Amino acid sequence: MITEKVETLDGWYCLHLIFQMDWSAWQKETTEAKQIMANELFELLKGWQKIEHAQKGSHYMCNITGHKGDFGFMLLRPELKDLNAAENAWHQLAIYQYLRPVHSYVSVIELGTYSGMPKTDIAWERTNKKLYPKLPKDAYICFYPMNKVRSDNVNWYTLPYEKRRELMKEHGLIGRKYAGKIHQFITGSIGFDDHEWGVTLFAEDPLEFKKIIYEMRFSEASSVYSDFPYFIVGTSLNTLPQLQTYLGLF
Amino acid sequence: MITEKVETLDGWYCLHLIFQMDWSAWQKETTEAKQIMANELFELLKGWQKIEHAQKGSHYMCNITGHKGDFGFMLLRPELKDLNAAENAWHQLAIYQYLRPVHSYVSVIELGTYSGMPKTDIAWERTNKKLYPKLPKDAYICFYPMNKVRSDNVNWYTLPYEKRRELMKEHGLIGRKYAGKIHQFITGSIGFDDHEWGVTLFAEDPLEFKKIIYEMRFSEASSVYSDFPYFIVGTSLNTLPQLQTYLGLF
Amino acid sequence: MITEKVETLDGWYCLHLIFQMDWSAWQKETTEAKQIMANELFELLKGWQKIEHAQKGSHYMCNITGHKGDFGFMLLRPELKDLNAAENAWHQLAIYQYLRPVHSYVSVIELGTYSGMPKTDIAWERTNKKLYPKLPKDAYICFYPMNKVRSDNVNWYTLPYEKRRELMKEHGLIGRKYAGKIHQFITGSIGFDDHEWGVTLFAEDPLEFKKIIYEMRFSEASSVYSDFPYFIVGTSLNTLPQLQTYLGLF
Amino acid sequence: MITEKVETLDGWYCLHLIFQMDWSAWQKETTEAKQIMANELFELLKGWQKIEHAQKGSHYMCNITGHKGDFGFMLLRPELKDLNAAENAWHQLAIYQYLRPVHSYVSVIELGTYSGMPKTDIAWERTNKKLYPKLPKDAYICFYPMNKVRSDNVNWYTLPYEKRRELMKEHGLIGRKYAGKIHQFITGSIGFDDHEWGVTLFAEDPLEFKKIIYEMRFSEASSVYSDFPYFIVGTSLNTLPQLQTYLGLF
Amino acid sequence: MITEKVETLDGWYCLHLIFQMDWSAWQKETTEAKQIMANELFELLKGWQKIEHAQKGSHYMCNITGHKGDFGFMLLRPELKDLNAAENAWHQLAIYQYLRPVHSYVSVIELGTYSGMPKTDIAWERTNKKLYPKLPKDAYICFYPMNKVRSDNVNWYTLPYEKRRELMKEHGLIGRKYAGKIHQFITGSIGFDDHEWGVTLFAEDPLEFKKIIYEMRFSEASSVYSDFPYFIVGTSLNTLPQLQTYLGLF
Repeated sequence: MITEKVETLDGWYCLHLIFQMDWSAWQKETTEAKQIMANELFELLKGWQKIEHAQKGSHYMCNITGHKGDFGFMLLRPELKDLNAAENAWHQLAIYQYLRPVHSYVSVIELGTYSGMPKTDIAWERTNKKLYPKLPKDAYICFYPMNKVRSDNVNWYTLPYEKRRELMKEHGLIGRKYAGKIHQFITGSIGFDDHEWGVTLFAEDPLEFKKIIYEMRFSEASSVYSDFPYFIVGTSLNTLPQLQTYLGLF
Repeated sequence: MITEKVETLDGWYCLHLIFQMDWSAWQKETTEAKQIMANELFELLKGWQKIEHAQKGSHYMCNITGHKGDFGFMLLRPELKDLNAAENAWHQLAIYQYLRPVHSYVSVIELGTYSGMPKTDIAWERTNKKLYPKLPKDAYICFYPMNKVRSDNVNWYTLPYEKRRELMKEHGLIGRKYAGKIHQFITGSIGFDDHEWGVTLFAEDPLEFKKIIYEMRFSEASSVYSDFPYFIVGTSLNTLPQLQTYLGLF
Repeated sequence: MITEKVETLDGWYCLHLIFQMDWSAWQKETTEAKQIMANELFELLKGWQKIEHAQKGSHYMCNITGHKGDFGFMLLRPELKDLNAAENAWHQLAIYQYLRPVHSYVSVIELGTYSGMPKTDIAWERTNKKLYPKLPKDAYICFYPMNKVRSDNVNWYTLPYEKRRELMKEHGLIGRKYAGKIHQFITGSIGFDDHEWGVTLFAEDPLEFKKIIYEMRFSEASSVYSDFPYFIVGTSLNTLPQLQTYLGLF
Repeated sequence: MITEKVETLDGWYCLHLIFQMDWSAWQKETTEAKQIMANELFELLKGWQKIEHAQKGSHYMCNITGHKGDFGFMLLRPELKDLNAAENAWHQLAIYQYLRPVHSYVSVIELGTYSGMPKTDIAWERTNKKLYPKLPKDAYICFYPMNKVRSDNVNWYTLPYEKRRELMKEHGLIGRKYAGKIHQFITGSIGFDDHEWGVTLFAEDPLEFKKIIYEMRFSEASSVYSDFPYFIVGTSLNTLPQLQTYLGLF
Repeated sequence: MITEKVETLDGWYCLHLIFQMDWSAWQKETTEAKQIMANELFELLKGWQKIEHAQKGSHYMCNITGHKGDFGFMLLRPELKDLNAAENAWHQLAIYQYLRPVHSYVSVIELGTYSGMPKTDIAWERTNKKLYPKLPKDAYICFYPMNKVRSDNVNWYTLPYEKRRELMKEHGLIGRKYAGKIHQFITGSIGFDDHEWGVTLFAEDPLEFKKIIYEMRFSEASSVYSDFPYFIVGTSLNTLPQLQTYLGLF
C-alpha cells in the first residue's frame, strides 16, 4: 500500500555546524596573535555578509549555551556543495587549530503544501521569500530535529493525506499565535541527516521557545506523531563586538 | 485534536554545568601557582555571591560523586544570555586550562498551575520566592531530567486536563511529606535541552533523595507517565575551605 | 516456523570508510611537504583507477558534509580481504598521520530475486553489470543503512514470501521513476556490519536524494517495515584538482 | 492511583569506580619510580584496610576483564560524602597521572522487606551484618545494574504489593540454592545513579555468576519485570602481591 | 511463575579483544626498532601456540575490516583469570604503547542441551571437543552477540521448555546445512558481558557468513525471538608472515 505523499517546495541548502574551542591553548597566545587570527576569521565572515546582502545566501552566528559546543553557525546557500566549500574554508583559518567540529545538521529549506500550492504571483513572491530567506539576527536561536512516528500502532506515513493535512492545519494554528515573537524555519533532512526535519527558531525572548513548543506538544501532530531527539539553544554572535568579546578581545 | 495545556509561571534561567579536571596536569604545578589560580576562581565566585546577596541570581557549587564529572554548579540568572556570560567568564580563568565541560543542562525555573494561579498578594509573594529563589547550601545535591511518556498506548499529552491535574495532585501529596527534609526545584527545559524538565533536590541527608523518588515512583504520574534518563549526585563545595581542600590546597 | 527466504545474488565486496583530518597539524606543514604527502596519496589512488579500468573493482572518493567526518571513499573489490588490504595500505601513507578513521560500513553488492532470477544471457549480462559495477562519479553521494522491522506486532521476516514480493515490487516502482536522476546501489551487510543493508545513491542534483527517499517512505515496505538509523551525504572528490583544492594545495 | 510501596532498610553507601591506566606512559618510568608511586597507593589502601578492620567500611579491589577498564574498586562507607573524600584522595596520588576514571556506580546497601521486618534482636543483628558488611575477598567479582520494567503493558510499579511480594519470594528461592557459592549484595541507586539497583556478586568459581543469573532469568521477576543494561566482571586484586604483579613490579 | 530452564555444558572461557593501533607513531619508528618490538609480540604469540599444541587453550588472531578496530584476537583458556593474565601480559609489551583496547567480549564456551545430554563415552568425547576446541585458522572470522527477546508481548524466557526446544531444533537444522563451510562457536555471556550469547563463525568464504545468518533470520527463533546488536568481521592474522606484512615489515 502506498499512501499519498505531500509535495514539497525546496529552497536553499542549510548547514548547522558547532565547534568546541580549545580555550586553554587559545589563552596561551598573546593578545596580538589572537587579534590577527580573529581578524582573519572576521574577513571570512565579511564575505558571508556580502553574500547575504547580495541575497545569495544567509547565516546566523551563535554562542551555544552549555557544554554541547562553544560556538557555531546556521548557514544557507543555493547548492549543497556551497556548504562543503564554506565548511572547508574554515579549515584554512589559523584559528581553526583551536576548533573541533562537534555537531552538525545538513538539510534544505522546505515548505509543505498541505495548505495548497501558491497560485498567484504575490503568493509565489511570499513563498520565495520563505524558500530563500534572510535569517533574522534575533538575540536567541533554538534548533531541534524532528521525526514523525512510525511505531507498531502509530504511523504518520500510513495516515491518509486528508488526516495529515487536518493535523498539520491544527498544528499550524498554534504557530500563528506566535507570529511576531518567533521566526520559524523548517528544513527537510530526509536523505541528508539522521532525522527527518530540522526546526530552527529565532526570538528576542527565549521563553517564547518553550511556550510555543510546549503548547504545540498538546496538538495531536506533536503529542502522538512527533519525536524530538534533542534541543540546542544559543545567543547571537552576529556583530563584531559580540565576537570580539566572545574571543576575549576587548 | 488539541488537548488543553497547563499554564506555567517561569522565573530565573538555570544552567547546570559539570567539569572534568585534569588532575595530573594540576598536580604538576607548584602550590604557589595553584593558589594563584584558585584565588582567581574564588574572585569569580565572590562576584556570584554578591549577585546572590543582591537577589539577582543564585548558585550552588558541588563535587560530583563518581566518574560523571569532577565539580560543577547549578546557576540561576534573570536572562538566558546571563548564563552564557557566566559560562564564558570561566574560559578566561587560568584554572580553565585544566577543565573540560562534560555535562550541562539548560532550563528555567517553572511552576505549573494545575492547583490554580496565585490569587492574593501573599500568594504571589510566595510564588515569586519560588520563581526567584535563593538556593539552599545543603550538604547534598541531586539532579535528574524527566520526560512525560508519549508511547503508543500511554500518552501524558493526550490525557484530559482534569486527569492530569488529579495525577499531579496525588503526586504532590507525596512530596509534601518530605517538607523540611528535601528542597525541590523544578525547571522546564522544553526548547532548551534534551528532556522536558529538570528536577534538582537538596538535602542534608542524601538518603531522603532515594526515599522521595522511590516513593513517588509508585504514584501513577511517575510509574506510568514519567521517564528518568539519568541521575547525578554530589556534595556541597559552597565554602572557600571546602574548595581549597577539594583543590588540594590545605 | 520457518518463512521462505529470498535468494540473493552477490557481487563485489564493499567498504565505506570515512576519515577525520587533523587540519591543525596539516596546516603547520610547508606547502612542499604537503605536496609530497599528497602525491603519495595520489599514487595510491592512481592504482585504484587502474583497477577500475581493468574492471577489477571500483571506487568513489568524497568530501563529507558536516561534522561526521572529513573525507572518505566507497570501495568495491572482488574479495573481502582485498578491502582489508586497501584499508591497510592507507596506514603506510605519510598523510595517514593526520587521519583517523571515524566511520565505516562493510557489505557486499546484493541483488534480491523477488522479481525472478535472470533467465537469458542478456539478462545475466545486465545482472553482472549490477553485481560488478563501475561506480558513477556524480557530483553527490548519499549513504544510509537500513533494517527490516522485527517488533512485537510488525515483522518483515514472518511475512509470507508472496506478501514481501508484492511490497518490494510496489516499492521498486517508485525507484523506477527516478531512473536517470539517481544511481542506486544496494549492498547486503547481514553478518558483516551492524545493520542489514546499505543503500548508496549518486546524483548530480542532491535534492533527488530527498525526493526519492521521502516518496518511498510512503510505501508500506518503508513506512511500516523499514528502519533507517542514519544518513551521510557528501560531494565528489574524484579528480586530482578536486583533491588538491580540498587539501589546500592550489 | 498510588500503589503501596515497600519499605527498605539502608546501610552503607557504595561506590563502584573503574580506572583506565595509561600503560604506555607507566612503562616508560623506571622500576624505582614505579615502586615509589605504587608504595604511595599501597599506603592509601592500608588506610582502607584499617577502616575495614575497625568495621567502619569495606572494599574490594579488582582487575576488570576486557576493555571496559583496567582496575578499580567497590567501596562501602557510612556517609555518601565519605565516598567523595575517598575518590578525591586518589587525585592526590602520583600514580593518578596514569589513571582516568571510566566508569562508576553510586548506590547504598539496601534490604527490601517483602518478607517482613526483623522482629527479634537476633534478626536485627543478622540484618545489621547485611547492612554494614565486610565484603568477601573471593577470587571473582561481577557487577550489574537492574531496572524494573515500566512499559506500556508491563509495569512493576503498578503491580499490587502482594503480587510483587510473591514474585520476589519466588525469585529469592533461586538465590538460596547458591548459598555458599555466591555472595550477593544489593544496593539501591534510585536518585543516585542511572539505574534502580546495583547487584554485586562474589564467587570463587565465576561460572556460578552465569548459572545463578541464567536460572533467575526464567523467574517472572526477571523474565518479565527486569532489565539488565550491562555486566562487568573482574578478578581480585586484594593482596599486595597481586597488585605488585598487576603493576608489573615483581 | 518460573519457567523450566535448560541445562548448559560449559567449557573454556573466552575473550574477544580488539585494539586500535596508533599507526602514525608506529610509522615514525625505524624498521629495526619496529622489528624488535614485533619480535617481542611474536614471542608472546609463540607461547600461545605452545598452549594450543598442549590443548590447554586456543586462539585466533585477526585484522578487523573497517574502522571498528585494527587487530585483535579470540582467546580460549581454562580459567577466567587466565584471560586477565593474557590481557595483562600485552601491557608489558613495548608495542603496547601504540595500542588501545577498543572492544572486547567476555564469555564461556556453552552447549545447550535441548537435544539431550550426551549419554555415551563417544558422545561425551565429541562434546568435550566442542567444549575445549582448537579454533580453526580459516581465512575469515565473524563475531556477533545475541539476546533473546523479552518485550511486552514476545518473551523467550516465558515460553514453555518444549516450545523452546522445538524452535531451537528447527533453527539448528538450518545450521546443519552449512557444515563444512562454517565453523560455529557459541559462547554464553550472561553475567560476563552486556549481551546473553556470543556467536563466532569461521569460514574460508565470507559470503557463507551472510548466507547462514540471513537464512536463519527467517526461522522463528531468530525472526521473532532474537536481537543482534552488532557484527564484526575480520581476516586471519595467524601466521608470522601475515603479521609481519600487517605491521609493515616486509
